[in-house]
Amino acid sequence: VREFDVIRAFSARFPAPPEAVIEPAGDDCAVVRLGGETWVAAADMLVSGRHFEDWAPPEDVGYKAVAANVSDVAAMGGIPRFVLVSGGAPDPEVVLRCMEGVLEACREFEVYPLGGDTTGADALVVDVAILGNLETEPILRSGARPGHLLAVTGELGASAAGLIALQAGGRKPARLVARHLRPRPRVAVGRAAARLGAGAMIDLSDGLASDVRHLCDRSGVGCRIDLDRLPVADDTRAYLLSRVREPRLVAATGGEDYELLLAAPEDVIGTIREETEVPLTVVGEVTPGSQPEFALGGRVVANLAGWDHF
Amino acid sequence: VREFDVIRAFSARFPAPPEAVIEPAGDDCAVVRLGGETWVAAADMLVSGRHFEDWAPPEDVGYKAVAANVSDVAAMGGIPRFVLVSGGAPDPEVVLRCMEGVLEACREFEVYPLGGDTTGADALVVDVAILGNLETEPILRSGARPGHLLAVTGELGASAAGLIALQAGGRKPARLVARHLRPRPRVAVGRAAARLGAGAMIDLSDGLASDVRHLCDRSGVGCRIDLDRLPVADDTRAYLLSRVREPRLVAATGGEDYELLLAAPEDVIGTIREETEVPLTVVGEVTPGSQPEFALGGRVVANLAGWDHF
Repeated sequence: VREFDVIRAFSARFPAPPEAVIEPAGDDCAVVRLGGETWVAAADMLVSGRHFEDWAPPEDVGYKAVAANVSDVAAMGGIPRFVLVSGGAPDPEVVLRCMEGVLEACREFEVYPLGGDTTGADALVVDVAILGNLETEPILRSGARPGHLLAVTGELGASAAGLIALQAGGRKPARLVARHLRPRPRVAVGRAAARLGAGAMIDLSDGLASDVRHLCDRSGVGCRIDLDRLPVADDTRAYLLSRVREPRLVAATGGEDYELLLAAPEDVIGTIREETEVPLTVVGEVTPGSQPEFALGGRVVANLAGWDHF
Repeated sequence: VREFDVIRAFSARFPAPPEAVIEPAGDDCAVVRLGGETWVAAADMLVSGRHFEDWAPPEDVGYKAVAANVSDVAAMGGIPRFVLVSGGAPDPEVVLRCMEGVLEACREFEVYPLGGDTTGADALVVDVAILGNLETEPILRSGARPGHLLAVTGELGASAAGLIALQAGGRKPARLVARHLRPRPRVAVGRAAARLGAGAMIDLSDGLASDVRHLCDRSGVGCRIDLDRLPVADDTRAYLLSRVREPRLVAATGGEDYELLLAAPEDVIGTIREETEVPLTVVGEVTPGSQPEFALGGRVVANLAGWDHF
């Protein structure tokens, strides 16, 4: 049983959703009518020994837990608004440090902490639930159509490169380590994409190879991704090569970049690009098939997969 | 640093609440305007080795995590509506069993699971965030006034007695064990109390001695509690005596009964009693002082305290 199997088994047993639920669990966020408005909701739990090790300062763990949730709201085209945060650790001081990071992220992303819980625990754990609201229709994973282009925001692989540095015991290259510990979700791009008519969107948390598969599965389509087109920054590439890694494959599988993957007609991609300062790179296209295909240097790469937290 | 100190230190650093926030963290739930409606929100995390041990089946842990949150909504006079649930364990099968209990509780309390997260973890942990809505003004902890009577719903001490049995390695007395593992929050009484004009309300999760102190602190009042009046069921009393415990003191400090404590004028207590089937027992009165006073057999009992999760 792997992580997605647990989620699938759990979701399949959900009761019938009440009328207020527009989109049940299974996308980046659920979508629900509250009052007269449309809201999105999600949760993410980070656990010591799984998502991070002793190299992660508790402040960064708290910050990242909020950022990961903000990214889920961004992937719906939503505006992050409120969080509830629960944290546990052996030492109350560590919980407090984690909560300091939570509050930094709350200020940074303009979300307000409605409350939460603190407790003792054998290892640091933090869970964040988020509420965001929508001023447009939500962008789901299921709206990709053959002919759409696939584009990613920002850059890929920097977070994974930072993780490799942290696991090796270093804090450098500092920019890459910061990309891993303090990701910057793409709220403005997500909102622009929703307003300008993107077909489908997902945030890149498990890694492009895994996340594009979710998007294809829910849209009932396939895709071709050209790994040579993935936006990998020079310092990421140089560091990964120095650690004997293939940069494009790390960028495709590394996870935790918290960039957005969009499927949209070519002209929509162009309009979104004009409206935002974040680079938007076309990396492939949606096909009528049922599987993602990845090519590297003109040759097909098989069995690319992302992250599993079990 | 103890649990409440962490929460206090954390809350003191919150940013200024946005206009939508009617009541920030610090009560059983926060209160917030979403769309044109008033909603309440809270979260509770249960951790292996702190809130339960190996004697707790994962299904019961999941069930109880939802029930504890439903109780927080009940204590505001709210209607529980949606939860987000994150769970972690070494074995995905254990997470699934925990989520089965979550879904049982969702059906039981008519809340819908909007989603959540699952992950590996070194020990079972589950965090539930809940949203409920209000059809009345929220009942806060801060509305107790001198002259109000203090009343509790249902019965006290049964959950603590069940815990003692579980810790001793038994599953009997079955009723008491069930009271500990599968608490029944008092949603209907909470709603009636809010509609009929109760002054203040809190749910009994940490234990009456500790929870009534929160209520007094936030209301700026004292109280007198007559421990001889606490509603302790016959089987609870008999079992506790057989384990050499003083039943009234266990009932006052044991925690996790998930009953409600209300402060209200005498006539309001009478009206609420007429409208619900759950017993409502007057156990004391609010005073102009600043501290709770507890009496047992006519003598003052000092230093009664509840539960600390660190």
